[in-house]
Amino acid sequence: VLTFVKEARKAHYATGTASAAHATDPVQPLPEKVDLPAEKVAMGERMFHDKRLSADETLSCASCHDLGKGGCDQARTSKGIGGQFGGINSPTVFNSGANVRQFWDGRAADLVEQAAGPVENPIEMGAKWDDVVAKLNKDAALVAEFGKLYPDGLTKGAVLDCVATFEKSLVTPNSPFDRWLSGDENALDADAKKGYELFVARGCATCHVGESLGGQSFEKMGRAEDYFEARGNPTDADKGLEGFTKKEGDRHKFKVPTLRNVALTFPWFHDGSQTDLAGAVKVMAKCELGTTLSDAEVAQVVKFLESLTGEFRGVPLK
Amino acid sequence: VLTFVKEARKAHYATGTASAAHATDPVQPLPEKVDLPAEKVAMGERMFHDKRLSADETLSCASCHDLGKGGCDQARTSKGIGGQFGGINSPTVFNSGANVRQFWDGRAADLVEQAAGPVENPIEMGAKWDDVVAKLNKDAALVAEFGKLYPDGLTKGAVLDCVATFEKSLVTPNSPFDRWLSGDENALDADAKKGYELFVARGCATCHVGESLGGQSFEKMGRAEDYFEARGNPTDADKGLEGFTKKEGDRHKFKVPTLRNVALTFPWFHDGSQTDLAGAVKVMAKCELGTTLSDAEVAQVVKFLESLTGEFRGVPLK
Repeated sequence: VLTFVKEARKAHYATGTASAAHATDPVQPLPEKVDLPAEKVAMGERMFHDKRLSADETLSCASCHDLGKGGCDQARTSKGIGGQFGGINSPTVFNSGANVRQFWDGRAADLVEQAAGPVENPIEMGAKWDDVVAKLNKDAALVAEFGKLYPDGLTKGAVLDCVATFEKSLVTPNSPFDRWLSGDENALDADAKKGYELFVARGCATCHVGESLGGQSFEKMGRAEDYFEARGNPTDADKGLEGFTKKEGDRHKFKVPTLRNVALTFPWFHDGSQTDLAGAVKVMAKCELGTTLSDAEVAQVVKFLESLTGEFRGVPLK
Repeated sequence: VLTFVKEARKAHYATGTASAAHATDPVQPLPEKVDLPAEKVAMGERMFHDKRLSADETLSCASCHDLGKGGCDQARTSKGIGGQFGGINSPTVFNSGANVRQFWDGRAADLVEQAAGPVENPIEMGAKWDDVVAKLNKDAALVAEFGKLYPDGLTKGAVLDCVATFEKSLVTPNSPFDRWLSGDENALDADAKKGYELFVARGCATCHVGESLGGQSFEKMGRAEDYFEARGNPTDADKGLEGFTKKEGDRHKFKVPTLRNVALTFPWFHDGSQTDLAGAVKVMAKCELGTTLSDAEVAQVVKFLESLTGEFRGVPLK
């Protein structure tokens, strides 16, 4: 959670504005636009899709963060270089600029730090930044374009900066839910509205809060009831925040994921264990809140969650 | 909770920075300084203390928000014009610029809207803005100074703008807790550190989160166990957010108060019913989290809370 920001925010973002009836709701609309330098966004988009960032030139950032698949890969865990599978579910890149830190365990402070990691991860892109930068610098046209944007030309820092700038532009406004928050009563059906009521009344919105419905804090997976014992098969990735901070009290804590576009970011949870959104809702109710929802209530919450699918550059996400 | 702000925030605020060991903590240091126009801050400070804003010229904003009393009046409810008592405890003005909305029930969107209210409230300052502005416009020296700051001179909007600007400057950094977060291991004793651990582990930091330890969301007073039945004597102010939104689901919801300088903002709760910080901690544990803390644990949490008293313009709050 970041405070002291309302004035600063007004200056930089075209705000999605809730109607008076929803002014105090725990969930607020996404901004419609983030003010960013267009040339760097465009270059970042190219680099995000450039497979030269991987050692064997088979993978780009988009391989695990496919904009056509909700900003992730819709796989349990991601396939890296040489067909190796990673240990954790790829989080969506959409709206990731709003996260308080990056990665499930928060080990990167921001998108620049995040983007540096996978390139050198031996089971992801398996490259070395020195090699990647040397390779890209053989592309004279690309070097010339970087020269116009960055005084030091095509460096690791410049690549990371433009990728992060592009990622900050990946905001998905105008979901049916946001349109309803902004005053369009017909944007949601009765079930979705009831689902949102339940979502707030049962306490989901305490952590899945704000414009992103998450991304602002780290909470224990199994806050109310143990999650890992029932699932079995413990992995290193299950440590969560503890893996980064080395504090025992941080065991099984993960960044609360955004629920924006959640219908597209399957399978769910850090372990990608849930392939059914209703099932994910039931597990969250039980393990995080120690409560049980009826099947009818779960279906309503799912309808609400499905209404969180927004638009990217004006085109509905599918 | 406001997201999409990290970049914007960096541009406007000198950030208090947590050490690497505390980078992912739910509580983060206050910024050391907020970048605001100094002349408007200074004029706002004068207006904040100007009793001509009340009908009988006995009260200023500072009467209920005394900077020497933790930014509030340290009274159960505030004494307004003619000795009338209000219905709710005065929240602190310190760090109030970080609140997602203003007032316990969130009925004001920001500090400008907030500041407009008490002047015309018949049991607070009991004035009319037209009269106040006319009265102030008889002060030629003041009018001249407003003319330098605001093109339309001394108007209601100008008075509110400079008061709100001054209020945004009321940040209280460098508390012992923030110094500890920033890496000074000796800034807290063992009890306070243990109290913070409990505060996080038991779930207090879920709502009392971020730089302000609150101010970002509305939560039900009596989330886990009923608060009002035991207290008795229901009042209109107990409705909380429902009083503003008219939604039954918002009954007894209040803006989660900041815990910054909480040792000074007694008595506690919206009803000012708690005069003992240990008692307030016990009630919160029971009614919000459905848990019980031992007396030793309560004492540790209190030590932590006492470490949240910061500085105003470099001078320790007392």
